[in-house]
Amino acid sequence: MSTSDASSGPEAVRSRPEPIAEAPPGPMPDGFAEALARLREELSPDELHLPGAPAAAPYAGDVRSRAATGTVFAVAAPRTVPAVQTVLRIAHAHRVSVIPRGAGTGLSGGAVPDHGSIVLTLEHLDRIREIDVLDEVAVVEAGVITGDLDAHLMPLGFFYAPDPASAAISSIGGNIATNAGGLHCAKYGVTRESVLGLEVVLADGTLLCTGHRSIKGVTGLDLTQLIIGSEGTLAVVVAATLRIRPRPPARRTVLARFPDAAAAGRGVNAISRSPVRPAATELMTAPTLRVVDAAHGSELARGDSAVLLLELDGYGVPEQTADLVAVLEAEGAHVHRPDDAEAEMLWALRRAGRGRGEGTWRIGEDVAVPASRLAEMLEQVEEIGRGRGVEATVLAHAGDGNLHPAFALPIPDGADPDRVPQVLHEAADDLIRAALALGGTISGEHGIGRAKLTWLDLELPPASRQPQSRIKAAFDPCGILNPGKAI
Amino acid sequence: MSTSDASSGPEAVRSRPEPIAEAPPGPMPDGFAEALARLREELSPDELHLPGAPAAAPYAGDVRSRAATGTVFAVAAPRTVPAVQTVLRIAHAHRVSVIPRGAGTGLSGGAVPDHGSIVLTLEHLDRIREIDVLDEVAVVEAGVITGDLDAHLMPLGFFYAPDPASAAISSIGGNIATNAGGLHCAKYGVTRESVLGLEVVLADGTLLCTGHRSIKGVTGLDLTQLIIGSEGTLAVVVAATLRIRPRPPARRTVLARFPDAAAAGRGVNAISRSPVRPAATELMTAPTLRVVDAAHGSELARGDSAVLLLELDGYGVPEQTADLVAVLEAEGAHVHRPDDAEAEMLWALRRAGRGRGEGTWRIGEDVAVPASRLAEMLEQVEEIGRGRGVEATVLAHAGDGNLHPAFALPIPDGADPDRVPQVLHEAADDLIRAALALGGTISGEHGIGRAKLTWLDLELPPASRQPQSRIKAAFDPCGILNPGKAI
Repeated sequence: MSTSDASSGPEAVRSRPEPIAEAPPGPMPDGFAEALARLREELSPDELHLPGAPAAAPYAGDVRSRAATGTVFAVAAPRTVPAVQTVLRIAHAHRVSVIPRGAGTGLSGGAVPDHGSIVLTLEHLDRIREIDVLDEVAVVEAGVITGDLDAHLMPLGFFYAPDPASAAISSIGGNIATNAGGLHCAKYGVTRESVLGLEVVLADGTLLCTGHRSIKGVTGLDLTQLIIGSEGTLAVVVAATLRIRPRPPARRTVLARFPDAAAAGRGVNAISRSPVRPAATELMTAPTLRVVDAAHGSELARGDSAVLLLELDGYGVPEQTADLVAVLEAEGAHVHRPDDAEAEMLWALRRAGRGRGEGTWRIGEDVAVPASRLAEMLEQVEEIGRGRGVEATVLAHAGDGNLHPAFALPIPDGADPDRVPQVLHEAADDLIRAALALGGTISGEHGIGRAKLTWLDLELPPASRQPQSRIKAAFDPCGILNPGKAI
Repeated sequence: MSTSDASSGPEAVRSRPEPIAEAPPGPMPDGFAEALARLREELSPDELHLPGAPAAAPYAGDVRSRAATGTVFAVAAPRTVPAVQTVLRIAHAHRVSVIPRGAGTGLSGGAVPDHGSIVLTLEHLDRIREIDVLDEVAVVEAGVITGDLDAHLMPLGFFYAPDPASAAISSIGGNIATNAGGLHCAKYGVTRESVLGLEVVLADGTLLCTGHRSIKGVTGLDLTQLIIGSEGTLAVVVAATLRIRPRPPARRTVLARFPDAAAAGRGVNAISRSPVRPAATELMTAPTLRVVDAAHGSELARGDSAVLLLELDGYGVPEQTADLVAVLEAEGAHVHRPDDAEAEMLWALRRAGRGRGEGTWRIGEDVAVPASRLAEMLEQVEEIGRGRGVEATVLAHAGDGNLHPAFALPIPDGADPDRVPQVLHEAADDLIRAALALGGTISGEHGIGRAKLTWLDLELPPASRQPQSRIKAAFDPCGILNPGKAI
């Protein structure tokens, strides 16, 4: 999956990835040329793209960020697990940085190459090795597209629960690297809760299997859980044993319209007090609805009203619906129950999101707050937009307190689309500090990558830095795995 | 909670903990006397029990194992988090081993003291600091009894999902240390899936907060998940932010009787193929039913038949029940739907389990296998019992492939109850190897502690040992935290 494909991703918030703002690349690191020479000997020709080759160009970054102009990097595209081991063994011997890469749909700059590094794309490890409905597991390689796994499970009556909005274009390996979330996490958990075991290649090329195939298992330290979400800094995930679940016997969509965003946030809290737990609780504010309408020709916006798009599933959906509607109406919502066709259209609009943002500079963010602070956070996003004089939209996985605000400005004629005005970065900074002040986190599900490193120390206590860096050193003593990212 | 209280625990499988079979203690380690002297200065008198004090005696072990006669240990019983930090700071300075301890209900010897060590009991940190139903979290100290938390949540319409059979006597801290499971894990997850953040004291006394209060959060390496299940070898858990859930609006118990154990195992697999997911799926074999009847005066046993005791909950319980009954009857089960009073009695019997085992030597085990191998595993347990000439019973959390087989022999008049015959250990060894051969694990939920270290290398690949020991060194460079356990 190339970066340009990836930028059509549902939560893509910019038309083009932003260049990493740094000094131009310096001298080439020692060992890079020797490592490439050895890789040419040991990999097949289609498994290696040398620096500057046209085939290497799409690997210069992800949806959020790309490398500074002049950055020299090679791309290793192994087709087998032993070939992944070869890449790491050689890179380790020559102390060359390796940038593991899934489908390139990341939104935090986690796959941006350094000068003199090797991008290791797992896209060709794309085999579903096994599906076992009795054990309720699927064993898949890292490059399998998340939505493809789900398509294979559907005729068996099963599904893979984690569903980032990018499921149609992102890969299982990338989802594991970032502990990806999505729309159904409040009920079914994030990626972490659907991974039973991993097959990883360590920095020196050693292959390691972690975890278990049974649902329970507590032998030894849980390396599986430690590696999930580590953004390629500890090991390279090549395959995973995933938990699968039976498809719910029924589903029902409910659309609730509230007078404004804060009221919608309070509506989410009202659901928390009830016994109903929707499978998805997506929130869109009024400016967001207008942007969605403009991008897709829909007619969702009505004045200042905000909506919750909810999905109920499982058994007893009529009773669930009755309870949910009662809760929402008691909170002052106007509730609409779309038929199946309209429901499908609404979910497609939600997943398509704000569109590609042609003609605008736009910075999208990913924060989470405790659910009780959702209404306040939504008010603060509006306030930040007003204060900075920029458009502020919010798509939120409101059921788990996870918000994707975006700040945008129109690009005047003749202006450089790559030169994102500083005021948008300032708005993003305001947002992240506001989320932290409400007891939240700087990243709910996209990861830290390179783009959010600046804010890491605002969230993590100083006492956590030493264990984090010692664990990194324990796995990767030479520091070749995705250096300068995530931690 | 003393060991003797703890031995009444539901899955207690011996009337008395077995002494660790090792040479008598050697010379006292350096630094122990100095550390005690400093602890006497810095702790209040009721926070320290010196070696040999009667108050120290109950801390000699857990339900499974106790220290060899003559083992000298002190007990620190801090009443505040800063006092826990003091204990670790002093122990670290003098290189004295610290054995963190919850309620002493462990079944793997994880809390057995070494000669010249300090048992650090968290039982007095027993405050529920906060319950917030909007955020769906409870913040509790490590010593809170798991069942007590649930009792506090009930009037609010919420519950804490992880429910080891020992919930009435085990503590949240101990549950986190072992990543405890229980009866409702297939639907609601193990302890790991209900912990959002931790407050831990590191080996040198530093206090560290990990995780987040929102349901999502991916900032940095996930130290929370790494520490869960590490059995006190990485850090001492003093408090946790736990996820709580709304109580299901309805429940229903179903009892299914199958001709034999393997047929019950196949019944579990038939459920997997259907869309129904019971909240609990407990399996009891015919010999188990006879032991339960003998211990509690019930009348569950009928010939060779085995039973599944199932609980459905949530919305649409009548439809769930209809689907489940259809699946079970198609597999040849005789299905009974007890009324509420009988259902309560059946669950009480299941939780009370095999009783205290007075008059028998008994060794209980904890393995898990992929669900598709459940029937084979149950046949092998019977075969092991026949082959070794011992009674073989099985209580299983069958929905997640987790079995608690026990092997027993009557104690002849005049024999020493502490001298467990070797044949029972041999049967346990057969069992663990059989579980591994079926693709399973040596511990589903009880942990490794000291009792299962022998088998660790049979499960963990050699490549995993180096990262495990390096992580241990990263957290505890002097090796004072629960040495010789778990890893």
